[in-house]
Amino acid sequence: MKTLIKNVYALLPDGTTPLTNIMIDRDKIASIGEVPEDFRAAKVIDGKDKFAVPGFVNAHTHASMTLFRSYADDMNLMDWLNNMIWPAEAKMQEEDIYWGAMLAAVEMIEGGTTTFADMYGPYMEKVAEATADAGLRAVLSRGIIGVAPDGDAKIEENVSLYKDFHGAADGRITVMFGPHAPYTCPPDFLKKVAKTAQSLGAEVHIHMAETKAEIEQITKAYGKRPFRYVEETGLFDGKGTLAAHCVHLDEEDIAIIKKHGIRVAHNPGSNMKLASGVAPVPRLLKEGVCVALGTDGASSNNNLDMLEEINLAAMLHKVSTLDPLAVPARTALKMGTEYGAKAVGLTGVGKLEAGCKADITLFDMNSAAWYPRNDLASLLVYSAHADSASTVLVDGKVLMEDKELLTLDKERIFYEAQKCAERLTK
Amino acid sequence: MKTLIKNVYALLPDGTTPLTNIMIDRDKIASIGEVPEDFRAAKVIDGKDKFAVPGFVNAHTHASMTLFRSYADDMNLMDWLNNMIWPAEAKMQEEDIYWGAMLAAVEMIEGGTTTFADMYGPYMEKVAEATADAGLRAVLSRGIIGVAPDGDAKIEENVSLYKDFHGAADGRITVMFGPHAPYTCPPDFLKKVAKTAQSLGAEVHIHMAETKAEIEQITKAYGKRPFRYVEETGLFDGKGTLAAHCVHLDEEDIAIIKKHGIRVAHNPGSNMKLASGVAPVPRLLKEGVCVALGTDGASSNNNLDMLEEINLAAMLHKVSTLDPLAVPARTALKMGTEYGAKAVGLTGVGKLEAGCKADITLFDMNSAAWYPRNDLASLLVYSAHADSASTVLVDGKVLMEDKELLTLDKERIFYEAQKCAERLTK
Ligand SMILES: [Zn+2]
Ligand SMILES: [Zn+2]
Repeated sequence: MKTLIKNVYALLPDGTTPLTNIMIDRDKIASIGEVPEDFRAAKVIDGKDKFAVPGFVNAHTHASMTLFRSYADDMNLMDWLNNMIWPAEAKMQEEDIYWGAMLAAVEMIEGGTTTFADMYGPYMEKVAEATADAGLRAVLSRGIIGVAPDGDAKIEENVSLYKDFHGAADGRITVMFGPHAPYTCPPDFLKKVAKTAQSLGAEVHIHMAETKAEIEQITKAYGKRPFRYVEETGLFDGKGTLAAHCVHLDEEDIAIIKKHGIRVAHNPGSNMKLASGVAPVPRLLKEGVCVALGTDGASSNNNLDMLEEINLAAMLHKVSTLDPLAVPARTALKMGTEYGAKAVGLTGVGKLEAGCKADITLFDMNSAAWYPRNDLASLLVYSAHADSASTVLVDGKVLMEDKELLTLDKERIFYEAQKCAERLTK
Repeated sequence: MKTLIKNVYALLPDGTTPLTNIMIDRDKIASIGEVPEDFRAAKVIDGKDKFAVPGFVNAHTHASMTLFRSYADDMNLMDWLNNMIWPAEAKMQEEDIYWGAMLAAVEMIEGGTTTFADMYGPYMEKVAEATADAGLRAVLSRGIIGVAPDGDAKIEENVSLYKDFHGAADGRITVMFGPHAPYTCPPDFLKKVAKTAQSLGAEVHIHMAETKAEIEQITKAYGKRPFRYVEETGLFDGKGTLAAHCVHLDEEDIAIIKKHGIRVAHNPGSNMKLASGVAPVPRLLKEGVCVALGTDGASSNNNLDMLEEINLAAMLHKVSTLDPLAVPARTALKMGTEYGAKAVGLTGVGKLEAGCKADITLFDMNSAAWYPRNDLASLLVYSAHADSASTVLVDGKVLMEDKELLTLDKERIFYEAQKCAERLTK
């Protein structure tokens, strides 16, 4: 099927925002520019007063944690985990994972996100099901904690997830391995995960260097910092690694990141709310490291709004380096789109360019935040909000049109998610 | 006229959020709780799935600068001012001030802001006119730069503004004096402003200690830091002072703030975007200083979204102090409402409480960001966005109902603002 987005302002890979047309053929962008005479579109989307950007890529989240949104805020990290989050998570059933992910899907589509990299479990197959139902693109991993008695069973669950869902939903779902973090996975366990993932040719998604406490704990336990500790297990020797957070880095850590081509998922909202610290993002970008953006879970953010992360990435590093040029608007947008796709291991995603997947978000510019129209990319990053997202396509398929969700029943999802949350938290 | 907001969740001054009713009699809240049997409401607003909070108070902005939104971003401060903002401002006519303020009014009402403290000029009477037309509450001051040749004329303009508009629009407009900043006002000039303001019993609105460069410049010129420099001119000896920014403070500065009961307008968004630094807000709050929130102008923010400032106040100080309890959600909300009203010199504003002005914003909770409903104040601060604001009252009068603006013609305002901006910036 062919779709035409007509007379739309589009954010191109070079940062320009011309008034143009986007031709879509099945799942891909066929071309951008003049409408070819022989292009017969079955569907035409009017681009008037719309700004088309690549769909956002949320490079690190835990979708089903939407159920814990606002359940436990303004607390110390370990108090929060030990006394609130972990006891509630222990009660989670298949339906909770599914409805939590469906609530996340509503929020992501409504906010212009088209791809998300998720680490969670058990029952990750329910997140895959929600992804397929919603029409989103996802990179899933089973969050594996090695210090628990059932660590090996979790590795097996990730193997099953890989075998059952890698390439599923018309290729919209891919699977990584999800060893949770250095402080929850002992060395022999990480070696086992590395070996298993590498035997399947699978990539790895892991939390790294999130807090000062983690650095201290790992250094005390193993006599080295988290990056060297994990490197020595061979986990970074596989197909690729997506490392979330990377807040506390020294020179050796950055050298390890560069050596293994590790892609970083920066989570400014979560790092601010949990008071984890400020990642050295301008430095990493200058070193040529691929830095993407993630929301982390909705219990530590508390939303899945990628435009907010893009804004925070542009704002936080300016003030923390006292350099107003630290992360400009267009760099922040690339982190949320093109670099995001690369970070989660996808090619041909994250750009408005012929041959790329037609994962596109149209922002409606009919609101005060979009006037006057001096610079559209700047308006999007510094002034507008996620609610301006009005039409969203994934794989060329329209998931939301003029704010109406076409794949999801919002009322039902809100009702079910509320019910699940009440059971888990009361 | 009596208005009833029925079955609504309401954020009370003690931080609780009960399901209740709000009775309004003319411009004030008559009571909150059970509907009295003899309360005959001419208008009933259905509070189902709504969350009522005091209308936000934007304690520091330059409304007409919306015209420069996205005109000049990702630049160094002095380059931005000298080469972009000041040349464009020099061209501003009465119509620019008016339509810029009207664009700001649309954005403020749509985002749940009911009061704003503005410093700008020339033609501040056009901001007063826009305020009256929109139905907002405003605290206006003529931005007075003493280093310019026409400094004395600007003081006179502020005098006229005070005489013509202090108490205007049914008391919704009050007027302060607006000496711009220590680095734009020499000592004799500040003395003159102080004397003039004090002779009228007017309060003062001034930028203070915004950047490191300001501290260095004033220290070099006068051998003392900005707070002591201004204190010695007598400017702080009048009825009251609203000091914007206060980013770079030492012990003596804080002592001066406390001694004179100076109220602080913290602008986290502007301070982040311009890379000015992080104000010591948790310390000021602990010292009992009244700390409000402002957006600053839309050219350095780039919006007038107070909910975003409330969120940033809660998030920025957590990460900058590495304390996840630094500014909790309910404190940030007070900074954007109750403390805001106090900071801009208003009494009986900023609280949902019997006897207070009926300046109320209802947030519609029918979106993913508001599920599950664990803690409404937390959801508002950490998850929801300004677009959830659906109904706004000022002085008991409905300015927006279910997202429809009742006092403003959006299409016209967008058109005129765009036209003005093009003339100023091209
Ligand atoms: Zn995480
Ligand atoms: Zn200002």
